[in-house]
Amino acid sequence: MNNDRPGGPEGLDHPSRALAAFAAALRFEAIPGPVVERTVNLYVDWLGSALAGKGARPVETIARFARAAGGHAGPAEVIVDRGGASAYFAAMANGAASHFVEQDDVHNGSVLHPATVVFPVVLALAQERGASGRDLIAAAVAGYEVGIRVGEYLGRSHYKVFHTTGTAGTLAAAAAAGRLLGLDEQGMLHAFGSAGTQASGLWEFLRDAADSKQLHTAMAAANGLMAARLAADGFRGAARILEGAQGMAAGMSRDADPARLLDGLGRRWATMETSFKYHAACRHTHPAADALLAVVTQHRLRPDDVARVTARVHQGAIDVLGNVVIPRSVHQAKFNMGTVLGIVAHRGYAGVNEFEQAYDAPEIAAFREKVEMVRDEEVDRAYPARWIGKVSVTTTDGRVLEGRVDEPKGDPGNTLSRQEISDKFLRLAAFSRTAEPQEARDMLARAWELASLPVVGSVFAGATVSSRADRPVARADMA
Amino acid sequence: MNNDRPGGPEGLDHPSRALAAFAAALRFEAIPGPVVERTVNLYVDWLGSALAGKGARPVETIARFARAAGGHAGPAEVIVDRGGASAYFAAMANGAASHFVEQDDVHNGSVLHPATVVFPVVLALAQERGASGRDLIAAAVAGYEVGIRVGEYLGRSHYKVFHTTGTAGTLAAAAAAGRLLGLDEQGMLHAFGSAGTQASGLWEFLRDAADSKQLHTAMAAANGLMAARLAADGFRGAARILEGAQGMAAGMSRDADPARLLDGLGRRWATMETSFKYHAACRHTHPAADALLAVVTQHRLRPDDVARVTARVHQGAIDVLGNVVIPRSVHQAKFNMGTVLGIVAHRGYAGVNEFEQAYDAPEIAAFREKVEMVRDEEVDRAYPARWIGKVSVTTTDGRVLEGRVDEPKGDPGNTLSRQEISDKFLRLAAFSRTAEPQEARDMLARAWELASLPVVGSVFAGATVSSRADRPVARADMA
Repeated sequence: MNNDRPGGPEGLDHPSRALAAFAAALRFEAIPGPVVERTVNLYVDWLGSALAGKGARPVETIARFARAAGGHAGPAEVIVDRGGASAYFAAMANGAASHFVEQDDVHNGSVLHPATVVFPVVLALAQERGASGRDLIAAAVAGYEVGIRVGEYLGRSHYKVFHTTGTAGTLAAAAAAGRLLGLDEQGMLHAFGSAGTQASGLWEFLRDAADSKQLHTAMAAANGLMAARLAADGFRGAARILEGAQGMAAGMSRDADPARLLDGLGRRWATMETSFKYHAACRHTHPAADALLAVVTQHRLRPDDVARVTARVHQGAIDVLGNVVIPRSVHQAKFNMGTVLGIVAHRGYAGVNEFEQAYDAPEIAAFREKVEMVRDEEVDRAYPARWIGKVSVTTTDGRVLEGRVDEPKGDPGNTLSRQEISDKFLRLAAFSRTAEPQEARDMLARAWELASLPVVGSVFAGATVSSRADRPVARADMA
Repeated sequence: MNNDRPGGPEGLDHPSRALAAFAAALRFEAIPGPVVERTVNLYVDWLGSALAGKGARPVETIARFARAAGGHAGPAEVIVDRGGASAYFAAMANGAASHFVEQDDVHNGSVLHPATVVFPVVLALAQERGASGRDLIAAAVAGYEVGIRVGEYLGRSHYKVFHTTGTAGTLAAAAAAGRLLGLDEQGMLHAFGSAGTQASGLWEFLRDAADSKQLHTAMAAANGLMAARLAADGFRGAARILEGAQGMAAGMSRDADPARLLDGLGRRWATMETSFKYHAACRHTHPAADALLAVVTQHRLRPDDVARVTARVHQGAIDVLGNVVIPRSVHQAKFNMGTVLGIVAHRGYAGVNEFEQAYDAPEIAAFREKVEMVRDEEVDRAYPARWIGKVSVTTTDGRVLEGRVDEPKGDPGNTLSRQEISDKFLRLAAFSRTAEPQEARDMLARAWELASLPVVGSVFAGATVSSRADRPVARADMA
């Protein structure tokens, strides 16, 4: 896009600016039809995940904090309690909620979960500003395209220690918010600076089953929104927060490649590469889960036929999953390869209900003990662009059976249909009891209409947001 | 303190826990009298800096954001506008305000500015909870002792890219807030986890004269408070956020030494090692400024007698100051060695008024061109424990005069008297016109009485905070 921009071919002398220019200028009309359609799918998929966060202790704790800190009224919706809040606090609470059940989307190449940091921001600002569905979609795509490229740029060395959804996610949220607020190129660049200098999120919490994952997504959304809002009010950020000598990559990556930041900008739609999560577990378990499913289906194995499973994985899976031996909670179980494979072997699917019912059942614990992970050269080389699943299953009668999937279910080449997304949405709404069955169906119908809504309004079908706010809030009070 | 703790001598098998245990258990009565006295000095010094932030664009922008996002009423004071807000937003706004004029304190060994991230938090929570001056002091000391050790632990490699006051400052704020909220050891450890995983702040903004420095202190204060508040409500953080394999040091340091985290805990009072800022500039300029002052005083040089100045500095000064050539704002001028030395040569002191009046005056710009920085082996070896100042001045008549100070004015061995702190306070209050002269004197008198106040209350003498809140806020609304 930038061959004719001042300052060099492809904007590589100042990639932060080229990326900001793209995000600021992205018009709905310039987004290809299939990308719009996929973005609606991602939105519906996200909304189901947000509903499913209701009742989860870490989510409710963050929502309580937000309420007490000042988010007790306003034009944006907190999905788990349906109350009104400022856009800032709604983004915070919904960012926490939509990542909890591990059903939100993921972009393989960047290992970023874009929906949970982008949609809370664009929904809250759209509700505040009375924006249209098209405005929301354009802003969401800006967030996806920026956030994914930042994640790819920060690379594998970054992901070894940092939760990319917390760090790159802050930039994704800022780009999305900046687009919805109508920032120009310079304003967007300032927003990037204020977002990037707040980027944070460490994996250390995983080994303690701590609650930080929800904090990361909550604050990536809130801080990104804050960064854009500050920029709209003249607050200045670093111009080269991504590539500068004291910027994000300098501090938090050893293999950052600036070319990734602008890769195919405006031609390659990274939004389209985003995967839906079929199983309700950490995405790093999905390739092996689907490979195991292929083996047990093909060979008609019962769980008791399995003596041993070797999951052949990329190094990143070992980094993230390696620390949990015996899961102490449902959430931690979703990061335990043995538990996930046990549930898949016994139930054929590892969804939210399967985890709730069986994560610590004796037969699952017994299966867990049969599973080991080893790093596989081919799988590791393909990662993160492709998430290949390979397992070796040793049966109790001594056979060794190999399973393989090249694209786990939900990946772009094996994506979910609208029917499958709808089923997943209704399953998640029922799981958390956030909406009654009929209301959930109404919400779903409305969500599918996103692209044609003149005003986004409430996600709860029918009602408008402001009618549920504790009190009306003047325009100046909105943020 | 921990020879008899389970798990090893000195707590080094789990330093995060030993540090959390110290912060949670710190009683006012256990703090030596001189440390209490110094803490009051640091508090008064901080309050002056907070007043001085009024009217600064980045500060006012953050305060406007906080108001709009929900901080429009509450039991804590926003100092720049005297309005009430939730403790969260008051900490955010006051954290931004008190770092703006570059007059807030600094701890040399950690290169942390503790006051601007600790006092906004303890003041806001004390106001909310009706806490006493002693409660505030004990909580502040917990914040100083923790934050300084975290900064020392993260080390010089960290400071090359990260603004330690943003990163370690988040832990300082969490420790202070946790102490004031009465967290136990485990709760404090959870607060550390949630704080450390939000730690952020990159130096990249400096080369653009961007506004991120205020954002860093605002969010370190707010995020630290949030972390403690979440912990008080059962939210769990990583148990080894400082030293873990995917913790802060793993991600953001190459020379972290865990022994620094517990160095002399309960015996060595790092609070006492904190320096007051005499000049209103980046602390890295102060040693050279005082050394130059020594030369020009001793040899009775007029500015025009100076042909060239070589400031002999530690590498950290070059890292932070090296990028500004021609300052474009008062704030950026405070990070420009040539400007600071020019003001010192012409005015004898580089205070807030001197910068406002002269930062871009022709004679200062001319002097600036005479100044160069070079790395000095002795100075660099001593840093950061000691900040030695050395300059070589070449006069127009060909002499080369050497200046040296071993402790710049304000350092622990050359600290400010209470009279000097009072003078500085009144100068800062007058500078920003946040308080009329008589009111400023009344505020000052009240601030000096901190240790004996049964209820901290408003910093504006006389009035109570709640009377200025837009509307009363129920207890459940406070955060």
